Amino acid sequence: MLDKLLVRPGHKANLSDRDPTDKLGLSGKPQGRKQLDQLLPKLDDLQARLAGEASRGVLLVLQAMDAGGKDGTIRSVFTGVNPQGVRITSFKAPGGREAQQDYLWRVHQVCPARGEIAIFNRSHYEDVLVVRVHGLVPEERWRPRYQHIREFERVLHDEGTTIIKVMLHISAEEQRVRMQERIDDPAKGWKFRAGDLDDRKRWDDFQAAYEEALTETSTDWAPWYVVPGDRNWVRDVAVAKILVHHLTQLDPQYPKIDPAIVGTKVV
Amino acid sequence: MLDKLLVRPGHKANLSDRDPTDKLGLSGKPQGRKQLDQLLPKLDDLQARLAGEASRGVLLVLQAMDAGGKDGTIRSVFTGVNPQGVRITSFKAPGGREAQQDYLWRVHQVCPARGEIAIFNRSHYEDVLVVRVHGLVPEERWRPRYQHIREFERVLHDEGTTIIKVMLHISAEEQRVRMQERIDDPAKGWKFRAGDLDDRKRWDDFQAAYEEALTETSTDWAPWYVVPGDRNWVRDVAVAKILVHHLTQLDPQYPKIDPAIVGTKVV
Repeated sequence: MLDKLLVRPGHKANLSDRDPTDKLGLSGKPQGRKQLDQLLPKLDDLQARLAGEASRGVLLVLQAMDAGGKDGTIRSVFTGVNPQGVRITSFKAPGGREAQQDYLWRVHQVCPARGEIAIFNRSHYEDVLVVRVHGLVPEERWRPRYQHIREFERVLHDEGTTIIKVMLHISAEEQRVRMQERIDDPAKGWKFRAGDLDDRKRWDDFQAAYEEALTETSTDWAPWYVVPGDRNWVRDVAVAKILVHHLTQLDPQYPKIDPAIVGTKVV
Repeated sequence: MLDKLLVRPGHKANLSDRDPTDKLGLSGKPQGRKQLDQLLPKLDDLQARLAGEASRGVLLVLQAMDAGGKDGTIRSVFTGVNPQGVRITSFKAPGGREAQQDYLWRVHQVCPARGEIAIFNRSHYEDVLVVRVHGLVPEERWRPRYQHIREFERVLHDEGTTIIKVMLHISAEEQRVRMQERIDDPAKGWKFRAGDLDDRKRWDDFQAAYEEALTETSTDWAPWYVVPGDRNWVRDVAVAKILVHHLTQLDPQYPKIDPAIVGTKVV
């Protein structure tokens, strides 16, 4: 499954050929939920080992169009994981000191420490997505950022961080349905900004920006995955599988217990 | 003068051919002090403009062997400059959270905001200098850092920071004299660590590490200068000249006054 979702480094992302309604071979929601129930305890165990080992970090970058399911993914996949080892940062428009520094400054600050899983709900990729589509800086400013980002992520990787980047890929129709729900449901309305409708009008521009960003920055050391986002249960299984796959490859180990302590009776 | 001090990008630093006692054409200390007295008001004015403009930053990286004169340079060159616009960070061995993150994390945090001059007293270069000489990480960990650093500095540059890197180049004999003073003078003894003598024994290893670091990381966007360090008055003039040169090139401008305010009488 993961091979299909990967944006192969050096190849185009081909977003328009990827089906947001793909079930990834799952028969339906019950099977999806069952698989997720099997994956989450593994994720919890792997996180505990990662924290115990305390030598390497994991960074999960989540990007999506508005209403793409970033918040829901974090809730579904990480609710059963010890929150002490997981640090989530939601990046809004930069303000205050953030706006006085380069765009990677605030991102670098919250990168995972050794033993941590850090999750970015939006990220430095907004600096080549919304910044590009809205023309917040000219092209000669944002275009060099692909290289900046590749090299920034290389440092993190070389110094011990596993980087996993996921785009939750929804269809324009699914976005319409979800936005309407947000407008109509008092419990969801707070998630809706009027500006979201303006961004929706620029759907194609955003897709083009995503296409180029993913193509330019999917690397061996920080690969992008495109996860079908229209069905929450498919999306949750896919993200959990990607995480468990990479953490299993890392194979974090609890440190050996001091031999002087083994067998000691605590009185 | 500056051309001679520059490590030309793509060329060897050739430290061993550079004379730490060079007077750079100055006749003696009186002429040096006179030149410095002319440069410092210029530096003060340029800093005020940079802060007023508040759109670009300046980073000065100072590196040297122990007793190489980093503290003295900062005192001599920046004592007359408004301290509100200058932020100095002395990097010691990393501890606490710093040690749990990649080596550029703590450095990035204190990079200059728009309008600021940041001075690094030691820097990320220690991660390819002392870390290399003392074998704190294996070569396969420190060697990729040359590229990390080049690309990290490229981000800073592309996003609006002027980077100036200065190695204060002293002779082994001058270091001996200064270390002896530190040991013998109660007012200077606090600057001396017993470990400094161990590092002095590895003089050649440090010089080789400097040679490679400067050669690898002097770039068009973040050049290295090697300043003769044995005579304080030569060193101070040279560093002030380098700063004034780059700030003059930047040519920072006070923002235009709001036309609605011009001529208003404050009552």
